[in-house]
Amino acid sequence: MNKVFIVGIGQTPVSESWDKSLKELAGDAGLMAIEDAGIGYPDGLFVGNMMAITANHQAQFGTLMADWLGFHHKPALAVETACSSGSSAFRMALMAIASGEMETALVIGAEKMTDSPGSEITASLATAADAELEADFGLSFVGLNALLMRRYMHEYGWKHEDFSDFSINAHANAAHNPNARFRNPITRDSFTRSPMISDPINLLDASPVSDGAAAIILSSRPIQNGRKPVSVVASASMTDTLSLQHREKAVHLKAAEASAKTAYAQAGLSPSDIGLFEYHDAFSIMSALSLEAAGFCAPGEGPRLAKEGKIKFNSDIPVATMGGLKARGHPVGATGVYQLVEATLQLQGLAGPTQVKRNRYAMTQNIGGSGSNIVTHILQSE
Amino acid sequence: MNKVFIVGIGQTPVSESWDKSLKELAGDAGLMAIEDAGIGYPDGLFVGNMMAITANHQAQFGTLMADWLGFHHKPALAVETACSSGSSAFRMALMAIASGEMETALVIGAEKMTDSPGSEITASLATAADAELEADFGLSFVGLNALLMRRYMHEYGWKHEDFSDFSINAHANAAHNPNARFRNPITRDSFTRSPMISDPINLLDASPVSDGAAAIILSSRPIQNGRKPVSVVASASMTDTLSLQHREKAVHLKAAEASAKTAYAQAGLSPSDIGLFEYHDAFSIMSALSLEAAGFCAPGEGPRLAKEGKIKFNSDIPVATMGGLKARGHPVGATGVYQLVEATLQLQGLAGPTQVKRNRYAMTQNIGGSGSNIVTHILQSE
Repeated sequence: MNKVFIVGIGQTPVSESWDKSLKELAGDAGLMAIEDAGIGYPDGLFVGNMMAITANHQAQFGTLMADWLGFHHKPALAVETACSSGSSAFRMALMAIASGEMETALVIGAEKMTDSPGSEITASLATAADAELEADFGLSFVGLNALLMRRYMHEYGWKHEDFSDFSINAHANAAHNPNARFRNPITRDSFTRSPMISDPINLLDASPVSDGAAAIILSSRPIQNGRKPVSVVASASMTDTLSLQHREKAVHLKAAEASAKTAYAQAGLSPSDIGLFEYHDAFSIMSALSLEAAGFCAPGEGPRLAKEGKIKFNSDIPVATMGGLKARGHPVGATGVYQLVEATLQLQGLAGPTQVKRNRYAMTQNIGGSGSNIVTHILQSE
Repeated sequence: MNKVFIVGIGQTPVSESWDKSLKELAGDAGLMAIEDAGIGYPDGLFVGNMMAITANHQAQFGTLMADWLGFHHKPALAVETACSSGSSAFRMALMAIASGEMETALVIGAEKMTDSPGSEITASLATAADAELEADFGLSFVGLNALLMRRYMHEYGWKHEDFSDFSINAHANAAHNPNARFRNPITRDSFTRSPMISDPINLLDASPVSDGAAAIILSSRPIQNGRKPVSVVASASMTDTLSLQHREKAVHLKAAEASAKTAYAQAGLSPSDIGLFEYHDAFSIMSALSLEAAGFCAPGEGPRLAKEGKIKFNSDIPVATMGGLKARGHPVGATGVYQLVEATLQLQGLAGPTQVKRNRYAMTQNIGGSGSNIVTHILQSE
């Protein structure tokens, strides 16, 4: 594909938003990105969203955002791959530009989950699992991750408390991010004492149901807006079975591995070249599995990386540098775009107190379902 | 964009399906298209669907179809623009191929609407309207179209019975299509006597809630499979306000006009070059508005084209040649792909008793919402 550049970014704070609706959040992020790029209205709009139709009774949310933002008579659509919807929308915008159909495009990832009762959101999240083989039997999405975590602990001999450093690191980084939902540091003690959700997953293993929106302007050309140019050097998406029972080995995210390998090949890079890895820490078990699948450690070794402090922002392989899904928050369809926005800030040297040192290449990995739809991107500072 | 070719097609009968689930319908259509192309598994999958998450409790339906069809470790996603979702997915696949990211792609449009109670489907369909400005006030989707029809009758002086020829033509053509939902001819008398749904729209003005799936294989190269090659020479999508109240003139589909004009410009054609127009006759009022917006007659003149018989398969501007949404049926996310499959059959001379005579260029126009998301394609027989 032809090279595509990130030329504008925007994000709202992740929160439980009572004063802004879904379209207002998405509109705020979109307008920030448009203003940041300073090139006027782009040629088209790609929206990543999972559950507007259930949580907000609104289909064609892509069209609505074109309407709300004043994009009339331009193309717009919504892309959905559950929790990786944001990155999938970004990937479609890349192709629209690389194909020559557009020169510039706006990508918005947005979700507003807190207007609905918890039981409805639990039901909506469960639609990311296989309806016939999993959800219809009462398995919730956190339940699926609990099965994965239990199996992982059994297979590799880790204890529950061994996962604490993923969450402690995420909260420590989020403390410096004004857009993060949870800016309070947590300790090993608060981690172990937090309430059980779905054994062995407790409250501090899990990312919060949240509202938020992030946005990016992509362009076929770099622009001069005083920021360091950032380009997309790899975009790879892979699928796996929706249901855990059909995977060869549940605790190995094969599609994530294939997606990362393809991305490395596209960029001509290896894991050691990556200075920042924004991973999909929806649950702490996913942190371990994503690090392993992306080649940063051997299978079963994820928790060791965390225990040894290697995932800290100033260490070997920084992750969740602005709080990750765990502490920045996880408005599902927005998450992939938040990851890309945060990676862009790191590559531009604008990440503040958690700025990473090696900031030439950043990788993002966004996961839909329990490892069934993976979207990996590698960004480069020019 | 680089030229892209349609090299395989598949479709299931449109029906009230009790023996096949959503994924089985979509799988059947997908496998037919794969077999028709004869080039093995394509590089990626694009699914057009509107309401799997509400009607079938299944999100990431694109991923599920990759799983069901055995596409593991290939990219897949779902695209949503309400009733134009199928054409939007097709358009994304075009860009994926034109960008060089893929050489071949499978597009599936699928919807299964009849498993849910009618009230739930009415609510799901209303999500295509503006939630805050329309649906929240109790306006259903048929109600919106009724407002449009009443205004059109007021503005141009047509009576309700003047719309009958759109539906009579659709049913007459559907009689020859084994995949059509309603193969019974209707008369002016049965049209006028059919039960009122939302004044002035009666039962025979409206397309039926249905189940069905259609599929297409796209390729960067034409292939030799004994069928006439068909290429995509225009793809144009435009949006308008979701809510009717914000349009300059409700009974003029400005985005449809802009989309058609862009498509003509891309292909270097004018309306008189088009030998077949598969339009979006979800309601008979939409038939009139779509014909006018696409430049086949002046505003307010749509019903006259129908009354004069010019929309018949063997006349000036054949429409709904295999029954259209009205009689073939309207499984919403699938409809755009059905239109493209039917246009392909016409261009290949394989349309049977309703084969059109001028079959070098065919245009399809798929409408999401009450004219808010329009996707127009022009296909050419090589």
